[in-house]
Amino acid sequence: MRAVDVIARKRDGEELSPEQIQVFVRAVTDGSWPEYQISALLMAIVLRGMTAEEITALTEAMVHSGVKVDLSHLPGHKVDKHSTGGVGDKTSLILAPLAAACGVVVPMMSGRALGHTGGTLDKLEAIPGFRTGLLLGEFQRMLADVGVSMIGQTAEIAPADKKLYALRDVTSTVESIPLITASIMSKKIAEGIDALVLDVKAGRGAFMKTTAQANLLAQALVQVGNSSGVRTEALLTSMDAPLGRDVGNALEVIESIETLKGRGPRDLEDLSVRLAARMVVLAGLADSEKAETMVRQALTSGAGLEVFRKVIAWQGGDPRVIDDYGRLPTASRRHAVMAPGKGYVSDIDPMKIARAAMRLGAGRDRVEDKIDPAVGVRLRVSLGDRVEPGQPLAELHYNDSGRLFEAAALAAEACTLTAEAPKIAPRVLAEVV
Amino acid sequence: MRAVDVIARKRDGEELSPEQIQVFVRAVTDGSWPEYQISALLMAIVLRGMTAEEITALTEAMVHSGVKVDLSHLPGHKVDKHSTGGVGDKTSLILAPLAAACGVVVPMMSGRALGHTGGTLDKLEAIPGFRTGLLLGEFQRMLADVGVSMIGQTAEIAPADKKLYALRDVTSTVESIPLITASIMSKKIAEGIDALVLDVKAGRGAFMKTTAQANLLAQALVQVGNSSGVRTEALLTSMDAPLGRDVGNALEVIESIETLKGRGPRDLEDLSVRLAARMVVLAGLADSEKAETMVRQALTSGAGLEVFRKVIAWQGGDPRVIDDYGRLPTASRRHAVMAPGKGYVSDIDPMKIARAAMRLGAGRDRVEDKIDPAVGVRLRVSLGDRVEPGQPLAELHYNDSGRLFEAAALAAEACTLTAEAPKIAPRVLAEVV
Repeated sequence: MRAVDVIARKRDGEELSPEQIQVFVRAVTDGSWPEYQISALLMAIVLRGMTAEEITALTEAMVHSGVKVDLSHLPGHKVDKHSTGGVGDKTSLILAPLAAACGVVVPMMSGRALGHTGGTLDKLEAIPGFRTGLLLGEFQRMLADVGVSMIGQTAEIAPADKKLYALRDVTSTVESIPLITASIMSKKIAEGIDALVLDVKAGRGAFMKTTAQANLLAQALVQVGNSSGVRTEALLTSMDAPLGRDVGNALEVIESIETLKGRGPRDLEDLSVRLAARMVVLAGLADSEKAETMVRQALTSGAGLEVFRKVIAWQGGDPRVIDDYGRLPTASRRHAVMAPGKGYVSDIDPMKIARAAMRLGAGRDRVEDKIDPAVGVRLRVSLGDRVEPGQPLAELHYNDSGRLFEAAALAAEACTLTAEAPKIAPRVLAEVV
Repeated sequence: MRAVDVIARKRDGEELSPEQIQVFVRAVTDGSWPEYQISALLMAIVLRGMTAEEITALTEAMVHSGVKVDLSHLPGHKVDKHSTGGVGDKTSLILAPLAAACGVVVPMMSGRALGHTGGTLDKLEAIPGFRTGLLLGEFQRMLADVGVSMIGQTAEIAPADKKLYALRDVTSTVESIPLITASIMSKKIAEGIDALVLDVKAGRGAFMKTTAQANLLAQALVQVGNSSGVRTEALLTSMDAPLGRDVGNALEVIESIETLKGRGPRDLEDLSVRLAARMVVLAGLADSEKAETMVRQALTSGAGLEVFRKVIAWQGGDPRVIDDYGRLPTASRRHAVMAPGKGYVSDIDPMKIARAAMRLGAGRDRVEDKIDPAVGVRLRVSLGDRVEPGQPLAELHYNDSGRLFEAAALAAEACTLTAEAPKIAPRVLAEVV
């Protein structure tokens, strides 16, 4: 089968067969198609789309481009969670220990921060000594010992995805539900999980700006997961404000630990509990109602916190950070952004907060950029709070004063005060099963 | 301006600015965009299209990727003709001498055979010694001497088109009216002509299979030509049967000379005269009615034939071929394809004839394939002819008997006999001005 024929079929809006898709993915993996043919096909997929069958075939071909981890020797159901990325989203650090405390096996492989979104690996690596680069053997031993392991995708997982993603990034072919779906699901299916809970974000601070787009993506993800033998559900959640109050790696670790101690912001705690409860349900350990009670119990009893302590210790980190936040990287300076008048906090623009944090060095524009784990933005208010003039809205944690001015302006712009108390929209918009 | 931003604009169906198009074409020419970005943009153009303004900007940027020939020192109007390619189309060899005999300056730069279509350069090179690779200086001198020169595009002409075409060929991005238009018109505008007559072919034996598609292409070509200061007209002509009776390089040279001697097939003579007459009109030498009389006069007087003799001599060829066809390459063997029954010739499939000729070695599948100038298919009947069983329909001229069987089967299949006399559709379908 010639590359030009496969490209021409998709160009003409026709469906590719599973064999044609396998030829393509094999050629990506072994380099036998030149990149100019791959990128031409990617653009044709972006503009012509793919059927559910094509997306499933693409996902499975990408799984088989590398190793599919075998966790069948471990007792219990293996369930992971994946978020499509938002601002201040540190739920993984909270829900993975909580779900494990309830008896779910959580083989979690996460990604890094890119653009305005944070990455679980960067957050964990803010803990001194924490290793996210475990070998597959260590990962499996840790799952047997602790019931949860939080690592980066190893090189053996879906290598075709790494190559395709690098090419999509430089050819404006990222925005495509079929390609996004296959990229996410191939990596998750390759983890060897039985079930998956997705947090598909919609809104200004998400990749999918509208609920309609996010819903299409959620449906594609759920369909491909179920077709591939992984029970999959999605929550559609709003990303029109940061999740919780902290944006920045060490700051988000602190907020996660606070949440596991029962002192976290309400929106973050609620979403973490809800997602963990779905993992408990998919693991077959309880029905929906009972699962939420179990997870809340793991939170209030401190069982989740103790699992997180074990995770940190097993992965080489300093578990004393749990009781002493001073052991985490700390920025040398603080700057408070004050309320310019009185009123209710009616809007907090997540993109502006994210850009402020990035400006301080908390994120990366390019894969090769270095992150400063200590810096970030700590909101001092939540949506709906009433504030007086001069009351702090946010606190910037920074090391480089040359970066402060722009970040402070962005943080100030991000917060809108109004005379009337706003109506607070719910975080969870829909469930897609 | 970043490549990804230009690609994303076109992916999203937006119009590119002239500056963005210039950046793209410069990057193609100097190699500063990697091929995977070029091919992603090409696929986006194929699927999203381009406005008339974008096509004009693309064409002009491609002209300026190389040299624009300056013929302003030559007196008279310079007019060329271009065909989008068909089977048995040797009108260039006939109309260029005829138009020149009427006083038009004809700076003709042609292409080679590719796929099922013939190429003027390959036909001319069937004449022993004929050089199509003149330098630009020789080309200009010859135009001053003879009034016509028939050469290949030199390396200085629209180099961006050469690079783009090579990439389109391997990325299934050939079929696109904007890209085809810019490719054709950039090369023609760079010749330094004042006016251009286009022969846009529609039908089974053409790139554009329907009249509607061909009409769209013709309109785009005419619009871009006129916007770029080249008076441009198009004839929309049918390519549902071979033009004339001969397909194969030396055979087509003979048929062209026969036509210049007034003994050519009617369809070939009529179309050549009609196209040459439009060239005379665009050169400002006569109105439509008078132009056709002038061209017919150049034909019957032998003035056109004498110009062709000069062209051959000037370009290093053996002008004695005009009176002695035996000096042209001749195939060692002949095979006649016989009528299986009696009836009227109601259809001659040009693709099957073309494939028969290619099978014998008359064409090329790939740019690097060698052509055998002697071989080809000589039809012995025209549409509408009445034939008896055993009467020859076609004569195959071949050198390699291993290639005969398949070619003979194709030639036999190409001809359909029916009991009723067919209605012969006109060659010229429309004029686009």
